[in-house]
Amino acid sequence: MPSALSADARAALTEILGPDNVRTDQEARLGRTGGLSYLDLVRYRQGGELDAPDAVLTPRDPGQVTEILRACAEFDIGVVPFGGGTSVVGGVNALRGGKSAVVALDLMYLDELVAVDPVSRLATFQAGVRGPDAERLLAAHGFTLGHLPQSFERATIGGFAATRSAGQASAGYGRFTDMVDALRVATPRGDWHLGVAPASAAGPDLRAVVLGSEGAFGVITEVTVRVRPKPTYHHYTAYALDGWTRGAAAVRDLAQHHALATVTRLSDVDETDVALALSGGLKTKALRTYLKRRGVKKPCLLILGWEEPHAARATRRVLRRHHPIPLGRAVGEAWRHGRFAGPRQRDQLLDAGVCVETLETATHWSGLDDLRDAVTTALRTVSDRPLVMCHISHTYETGASLYFTVLAPQAADPIAQWQHAKQAACEAIAGRGTITHHHAIGVDHAPYLDAEIGDLGIEVLTAVKKTLDPTGILNPGKLISRS
Amino acid sequence: MPSALSADARAALTEILGPDNVRTDQEARLGRTGGLSYLDLVRYRQGGELDAPDAVLTPRDPGQVTEILRACAEFDIGVVPFGGGTSVVGGVNALRGGKSAVVALDLMYLDELVAVDPVSRLATFQAGVRGPDAERLLAAHGFTLGHLPQSFERATIGGFAATRSAGQASAGYGRFTDMVDALRVATPRGDWHLGVAPASAAGPDLRAVVLGSEGAFGVITEVTVRVRPKPTYHHYTAYALDGWTRGAAAVRDLAQHHALATVTRLSDVDETDVALALSGGLKTKALRTYLKRRGVKKPCLLILGWEEPHAARATRRVLRRHHPIPLGRAVGEAWRHGRFAGPRQRDQLLDAGVCVETLETATHWSGLDDLRDAVTTALRTVSDRPLVMCHISHTYETGASLYFTVLAPQAADPIAQWQHAKQAACEAIAGRGTITHHHAIGVDHAPYLDAEIGDLGIEVLTAVKKTLDPTGILNPGKLISRS
Repeated sequence: MPSALSADARAALTEILGPDNVRTDQEARLGRTGGLSYLDLVRYRQGGELDAPDAVLTPRDPGQVTEILRACAEFDIGVVPFGGGTSVVGGVNALRGGKSAVVALDLMYLDELVAVDPVSRLATFQAGVRGPDAERLLAAHGFTLGHLPQSFERATIGGFAATRSAGQASAGYGRFTDMVDALRVATPRGDWHLGVAPASAAGPDLRAVVLGSEGAFGVITEVTVRVRPKPTYHHYTAYALDGWTRGAAAVRDLAQHHALATVTRLSDVDETDVALALSGGLKTKALRTYLKRRGVKKPCLLILGWEEPHAARATRRVLRRHHPIPLGRAVGEAWRHGRFAGPRQRDQLLDAGVCVETLETATHWSGLDDLRDAVTTALRTVSDRPLVMCHISHTYETGASLYFTVLAPQAADPIAQWQHAKQAACEAIAGRGTITHHHAIGVDHAPYLDAEIGDLGIEVLTAVKKTLDPTGILNPGKLISRS
Repeated sequence: MPSALSADARAALTEILGPDNVRTDQEARLGRTGGLSYLDLVRYRQGGELDAPDAVLTPRDPGQVTEILRACAEFDIGVVPFGGGTSVVGGVNALRGGKSAVVALDLMYLDELVAVDPVSRLATFQAGVRGPDAERLLAAHGFTLGHLPQSFERATIGGFAATRSAGQASAGYGRFTDMVDALRVATPRGDWHLGVAPASAAGPDLRAVVLGSEGAFGVITEVTVRVRPKPTYHHYTAYALDGWTRGAAAVRDLAQHHALATVTRLSDVDETDVALALSGGLKTKALRTYLKRRGVKKPCLLILGWEEPHAARATRRVLRRHHPIPLGRAVGEAWRHGRFAGPRQRDQLLDAGVCVETLETATHWSGLDDLRDAVTTALRTVSDRPLVMCHISHTYETGASLYFTVLAPQAADPIAQWQHAKQAACEAIAGRGTITHHHAIGVDHAPYLDAEIGDLGIEVLTAVKKTLDPTGILNPGKLISRS
């Protein structure tokens, strides 16, 4: 498909960025057509109707981002901010909205650690820095960020902020929003700086308006985050708890006693079956016999990872009440080393004709079982005998997240197959929990947002967008699809 | 001053609330003219130009609040939401803005604990519940909120949320915003519910738009908060550290090692002088000799309060490096028992012709000393030889709050005297820290808000206000004075 970018617009953008940073070749454009959801992958494989951007822009500094937005507003061109491209909800899909053209604004060259304040333990990153690079840059100063979502290897600092990301070590390091101290945002109305102190009561915290705004209000160009000394101690281990109810009670108890491990992760019986079968070196049958002898009929796998010895003692003190059966460090370490592999394994499953997708939600402890049952039932409609697995990976004093993985034989129309199951799941979630705990709204969850924040909430988001992006060029069709 | 409320408006409000809950008598109106800042108190004493509301409305349930707002929008009447009336920044002053009349909406009868979820550790309060009542209602269920600002005895749950309050136990329990799970807000556009899960990535967190909105976007009618088991262990003690630099380094070390006591509070040398002189039963001279012998030339008082023994051990382990000299539990307990007395002591000082006021800010650790010096210098302009004291009462990994107390002989024009000093202090803060860490914007800080959140920030707040309060009836002249 030829680029719809007009010659005038192209000239104006080239004026700002130079010719090398305004690409309209197929390779560049196809590389930014969408994200990494199951439906994205199926569509790539089908080779059909892909929404490719008309150009890929690669600014070299935050100032250029602001200039690009002004130019795109002038030429009425849609802009999709593009970081790691790991969205699983359509957040980076190159939708045109009502615009004549749409560009992908790839932040890959905004890759610097701008400043480190070791006394205050703050670091300022440009938005395009990827997870491993952030850790490498901080390690040179003795620090870590500790944000480890499954998308870690590709996703960026800006993307973490724009989607309110949560990492696997959230029990120890908090969600990404908890780490953010200050933000620099390029908008069509100019540059916006937010955050001057560790805490404030100066009106509403407007950083929270930018965090989770998914590129619809502005392009995050710099993020100042809290950092911590890089730990030298890592201890990962695993336990079996007997049944989901006991397992969930145990992680609740840990959370409410402030005794969570840095990584705390509970799998349900079905996910545990698969995990134990796959975990290298374990003699699964012998293990089952061992567990049965110890009174564990329905093992639920609990992965715990600590970064300091004191913390491990506190966890064990609370955990003891729930009759945990140790499975040893090998199981914990196996999880740790495979922690980012999930997305890569999907390609093999797709090759084998398997429908494989995940979704997640969160709710309060008192409603957790009801939510899990309702979503599981909804997801089972995907095929005759699907495998629906669930785990808790983010735990709070008042509740937890639930992360579901579905495996089923692909139907003749794999897209419709998953869309039906996903819709059923989203309807089961509405009224019981949040439509997304850490995957954001994007395109896929937009129909369910008003159920969560109300019509007034949608109107408030729309008013904020009109203020910052009066002509609606930013990430058309995402977050608030009505606008 | 006669009430400017029209007969039609009064009839409409009486229709909703009944005659007993629409009061226009002097006593009711004078009781809601303003808050508790030094300038408020001086003005009360001068008996001069007080802005009294034209009526005091006392709704009996959240539904009536929504009805009141609709009626006030119809009659174009300003509405000042009124909780404990403890604002020290003019937040509850009965300003008319451009309206023909203004009413105080006193939430005193919204005084119920609506629901308790002991499994999720959540409690839903109506907004008018005062601090001690919240604790009493929760204690019946074995829980505590743990939010203890100095205004605790009078201030309300709704006020805590509307002003982003921080309590003395913030190191253990967090700021009030950290406790909030869900909100119910009455707006002229209808009822708005926010918050469905312990954490979410469903677009921006709009609870943060309501928290700190100071009654300008809506009237908070219900707040669901995280609660914790009521502690049975309380241990308050005190140490002396040698000099502000060592003291600040010690609390920073505690914060960055996650070893803060539930209450952690460091006074500077001048505040320590006064505190030790006033603390009952201590032989001050003997104490100074003792401290000098232990090598402490410039004692800074560190108050620590724990609610569990393990925590105390962790604190002491880190504190040891900073050569703390124990002052004993009596000093700690003396602080604890006088913790809410500050506001009451001001009346005596005013009687004696003393200018006495406080202000507070926060910044990152690396800028803390510069901020303290700049604000102290600015505040010293209040008179020839004023006493300017400072303490850290809220500590974070990345920085801390600074709370200043000023004592000086009153000048001939006490209002102008303080306004000049306050302006100098606010100008010193701008660019160095936040204009307010826990006292909100109100009227007094409104001129400094755009320096902190930018013109775009003011525009965003204005757009949100126009969406929720299209005719601008809510708390005129507060938060965003431009609107």
